[in-house]
Amino acid sequence: MTATGTRPRNDSTRSERRPFRGVLVPALTPFTVDGSPDQATFVSFCIWLLDQGAHGLAVFGTNSEANSLSVEEKIDLLDRLVGAGLDSARMMPGTGCCALPDSVRLTAHAMKLGCGGVLMLPPFYYKGVSDDGLFRSFAEVIERVGESRLRVYVYHIPPVAQVPITLGVVERLLAKYPAQIAGMKDSGGDWNNTKAFIDAFATSGFDVFAGSETFLLQNMRHGGAGCISATANVHPGPIARLFDTWRAEGADPQQARLDVIRSVFQKFPMIPALKSAIAHHGKDAGWASVRPPLVAFTPGQANALIADLDRQQFAMPGLAAR
Amino acid sequence: MTATGTRPRNDSTRSERRPFRGVLVPALTPFTVDGSPDQATFVSFCIWLLDQGAHGLAVFGTNSEANSLSVEEKIDLLDRLVGAGLDSARMMPGTGCCALPDSVRLTAHAMKLGCGGVLMLPPFYYKGVSDDGLFRSFAEVIERVGESRLRVYVYHIPPVAQVPITLGVVERLLAKYPAQIAGMKDSGGDWNNTKAFIDAFATSGFDVFAGSETFLLQNMRHGGAGCISATANVHPGPIARLFDTWRAEGADPQQARLDVIRSVFQKFPMIPALKSAIAHHGKDAGWASVRPPLVAFTPGQANALIADLDRQQFAMPGLAAR
Repeated sequence: MTATGTRPRNDSTRSERRPFRGVLVPALTPFTVDGSPDQATFVSFCIWLLDQGAHGLAVFGTNSEANSLSVEEKIDLLDRLVGAGLDSARMMPGTGCCALPDSVRLTAHAMKLGCGGVLMLPPFYYKGVSDDGLFRSFAEVIERVGESRLRVYVYHIPPVAQVPITLGVVERLLAKYPAQIAGMKDSGGDWNNTKAFIDAFATSGFDVFAGSETFLLQNMRHGGAGCISATANVHPGPIARLFDTWRAEGADPQQARLDVIRSVFQKFPMIPALKSAIAHHGKDAGWASVRPPLVAFTPGQANALIADLDRQQFAMPGLAAR
Repeated sequence: MTATGTRPRNDSTRSERRPFRGVLVPALTPFTVDGSPDQATFVSFCIWLLDQGAHGLAVFGTNSEANSLSVEEKIDLLDRLVGAGLDSARMMPGTGCCALPDSVRLTAHAMKLGCGGVLMLPPFYYKGVSDDGLFRSFAEVIERVGESRLRVYVYHIPPVAQVPITLGVVERLLAKYPAQIAGMKDSGGDWNNTKAFIDAFATSGFDVFAGSETFLLQNMRHGGAGCISATANVHPGPIARLFDTWRAEGADPQQARLDVIRSVFQKFPMIPALKSAIAHHGKDAGWASVRPPLVAFTPGQANALIADLDRQQFAMPGLAAR
């Protein structure tokens, strides 16, 4: 990894096993007026994210409203991204669904397109499931997809999925699938949990991504791999820059600035807030739409957010020009 | 409704608006050795349930592992039931998914097949969603399906979905869609909540089904419409009989006997327990299979369950002969 500015490079051995490091964006999904995914706007937005310095695209995450999209809609969006020439090796689409056949279908499609990896939620309908059941859920997808080059990042997000991924599950998965189990995203918001996974598995080549840039510097200093963060949708450049320069002087003030911007968004419901910010700064009102069960911002909420962001000199350079 | 033994009849006006009363079974889904839904066994089992006296089939419920099935698998199973000559008017398939297009597709298919109604979960990935967001979720499905004969039963199961359906949401839905919003299943396990919905909406023709036969007699005495219960998979005859005779003498002892049998199953994880009981009493070991994230019983668990059931002289008449 370089110390300043430029895109980080992995040593080649590591790179073959673990394709991602840095700041990945769980790209938001724009909708047209009839409520369908707006494919053209999605592609254009993903290009902007990479142009800003994001290291990868974790499309179909929680903030992408991925579970409000059908499998077919996700396949179409992924096809469209790859068709537009974006590098699939830099994509880590979310492919974990409640139904095993859906997870297998999406994961196999991502592999067919050459995606660098997949981010996999556990099945999230049943609660209180056993470690054995969770292990089998991931194992069945890996077995059925049957691709040695598959790289799975397990997705721990107990505040939403309500189904946590334990150290025990990862230990069993790594023992059985050491090549395929590549890492995790920890969106639990508890640094001690993130650190426990790094301590337990990082030396086995298991890459731990923090679920928020709030923990980015801390995560890198402890041996993590980066972050996959909602607010990277609106603040990709500065977050990526901290990753690119985290060993340099000035990393702490950078982190502090990221925290200020994130704290503004955290005062609001996150997904409609992010979309409202993009609608405003990208001069594209359609971006504010969300799918039920989420609700778009009222003009009053949007104005309050924008005023708060203006007070922090927040900007999204180049977005409106696209 | 008749007082004893025979199948209940509604008065015709009510029947046109609200097609279901009685005991509906959230039919379990059997799997073949390769993990696919076992369509032939499913059809045969649903016929047995109706032969035992069940009043309807709420296929694709929580106990059906419905959220572990793809939309395509559910469509195929429903087609197979109807193709086998089962009366679709007595079917209330679960059609509520996380993704709006999936809920619309399944609901439209159920309407095409002539299903009497659908049981609709709220989108269950995002937690803490607003009443406005939940209202919009159901409203969008109703609008997009666009069938005046659609009958929606909303599905309140906070212990699993973690997204409750409030009185306020039902009030708004009933005001906007008085014909389509037909009732609910309350699987919250809190009789006071069930009663609150009956008190608020039963006089508007909103049919409240208890989520367990534990509350069947209480529900009927307070103006409810019946129950949709997991254990109706294994104990359909006696549960249906209580509904058919709830006004007669002897209803309380019947309820007490139902409670004894249910209490045996409640000592175990419900879905694998129900499937193990069917595997044993139906002499079909394949029935014990579940999909991840659930885990099938070990022989020891199965033996413990069967021994407990034997002590209660539990039987599933005619199942093994099918």
